[in-house]
Amino acid sequence: MQHPRPGEVLFTERTPRVVAARKLQRRRDRDAARRFLVEGPQAVREALGSPAAPGTRSPRADQAAPSSGAAGRAGVVELFVTPEAADRYPDLVAEAPSVSVVTEQAMASLADTVHPQGLVAVCEFLDVPLRAALASGPGLVVVLAGIADPGNAGTVLRTADAAGASVVVFPDDTVDPYNGKCVRASAGSLFHVDVVRGGDSLACVGALRDAGLRVLAADAYGAHDLDRYTDDGGLSGRTAWVFGAEAHGLAPEVARAAHARVKVPIHGRAESLNLAAAAAVCLYASARAARRPAAS
Amino acid sequence: MQHPRPGEVLFTERTPRVVAARKLQRRRDRDAARRFLVEGPQAVREALGSPAAPGTRSPRADQAAPSSGAAGRAGVVELFVTPEAADRYPDLVAEAPSVSVVTEQAMASLADTVHPQGLVAVCEFLDVPLRAALASGPGLVVVLAGIADPGNAGTVLRTADAAGASVVVFPDDTVDPYNGKCVRASAGSLFHVDVVRGGDSLACVGALRDAGLRVLAADAYGAHDLDRYTDDGGLSGRTAWVFGAEAHGLAPEVARAAHARVKVPIHGRAESLNLAAAAAVCLYASARAARRPAAS
Repeated sequence: MQHPRPGEVLFTERTPRVVAARKLQRRRDRDAARRFLVEGPQAVREALGSPAAPGTRSPRADQAAPSSGAAGRAGVVELFVTPEAADRYPDLVAEAPSVSVVTEQAMASLADTVHPQGLVAVCEFLDVPLRAALASGPGLVVVLAGIADPGNAGTVLRTADAAGASVVVFPDDTVDPYNGKCVRASAGSLFHVDVVRGGDSLACVGALRDAGLRVLAADAYGAHDLDRYTDDGGLSGRTAWVFGAEAHGLAPEVARAAHARVKVPIHGRAESLNLAAAAAVCLYASARAARRPAAS
Repeated sequence: MQHPRPGEVLFTERTPRVVAARKLQRRRDRDAARRFLVEGPQAVREALGSPAAPGTRSPRADQAAPSSGAAGRAGVVELFVTPEAADRYPDLVAEAPSVSVVTEQAMASLADTVHPQGLVAVCEFLDVPLRAALASGPGLVVVLAGIADPGNAGTVLRTADAAGASVVVFPDDTVDPYNGKCVRASAGSLFHVDVVRGGDSLACVGALRDAGLRVLAADAYGAHDLDRYTDDGGLSGRTAWVFGAEAHGLAPEVARAAHARVKVPIHGRAESLNLAAAAAVCLYASARAARRPAAS
């Protein structure tokens, strides 16, 4: 057993396993270990694959089997917990394969937040190859192309999950999905969808087209208005949405490779929408079209 | 003239007018002066009411006249600018009623961002009373009830503008719309819509009902599904959306006072949407319903 009994010494920020885990805050070390950190009770519970909280739905259960490395346990290797959090979340401690009880200071060194909630799990990478993710025939796919802000990327991942997307792709030109801020902003959705990590954005668009998806580039200067495109049936089939960086938009060659460039209409005097808002509008337009095909 | 000629001394962070302006970073001092700070070339341009950039639309021009304190000049009192920014943005310097050229250090003390862009304007408050804002008969109103995060509030303000809302209400239980982070996140939209500041959330809902608007509470546990509500014509008339805090949602008495509690459907396994995403989906549902009433 890793965790001290009453009276035993707590692990500190200098204990080698704490030091090793802390290194996972850096992408280089994550890539070497193929492990990442998950923080806080909600995310740790998702990572452990605990029974969903009441009210949580899982309509994708039937799709999850073939390709999903994300379904069920996400490969928690170790749980670091403060004594206080261990008392507060006995279910999580009981489920973890290995538990290390640490000082508040060690927790602060592992955690990414200002007010850590006393739990950090080391998890194995859970991304799946694009080919495997596409093998299950997903109806809604999201590609994050060239997004540098981890909070934005995590938020769109969360929204994609809520809108019913089952695959989210983080190509090489986008922030690491295992970045602590991205994991946190995803609010557990990292564990709900098939995450694809790496690869070239342009090659990804090609693979999506080859898999029979209609690829739509969200583009503030796109030729197609989202509402009209929806009315014309453009969202009626299996769709992949490609979202680019907030400031510069999609790389021109990526936008050109899509079947269509679609813009969210601006009705007022705002110059544009931010990425998270634009993605929410596009993805829920697809979700609504899938729900009532007659109206789309 | 306030600004030094070549060879003259630049204002420093200890110059009294810089010190006075810096105080506007605090709400208490903003309230006393009824002035706030606007940072960066884009926002300063909006504040000055400069001609819109190419591609910017202003379909609300016809609505703006009766009540809008937001239309046209927003009451820039003074512009602080570094020598470099003065060279770069001569149009903004020319338009400002009073210009103070300051050191980089003084600019850093005035600016809220890590990498200030060399321009900070002092503006007069531009909010309008709720009664005045409602007198113009707005078709889409947004109420931010109990939102503490200025970035979230500013983002929803931006999205509201993009979706065609013409009034956004910040009641007393919500962050100050003149908070620097909120101003920045609004990306200029603070100057595009009628902003109402202060007042009680519940009283605001009452006033909106009295003004003939259908008041909808965005509520993750609402009885009405947004898609079905839209299909049933619930969004066909003049609408006010009320959004609450991300963590706790709307205060029960505020949600109860609305005509209906509407939830954005969750199709995947996400527990919820974040505030900005949920607001984008709701407001664009209204925008779409207004655009093609036959389908709503």
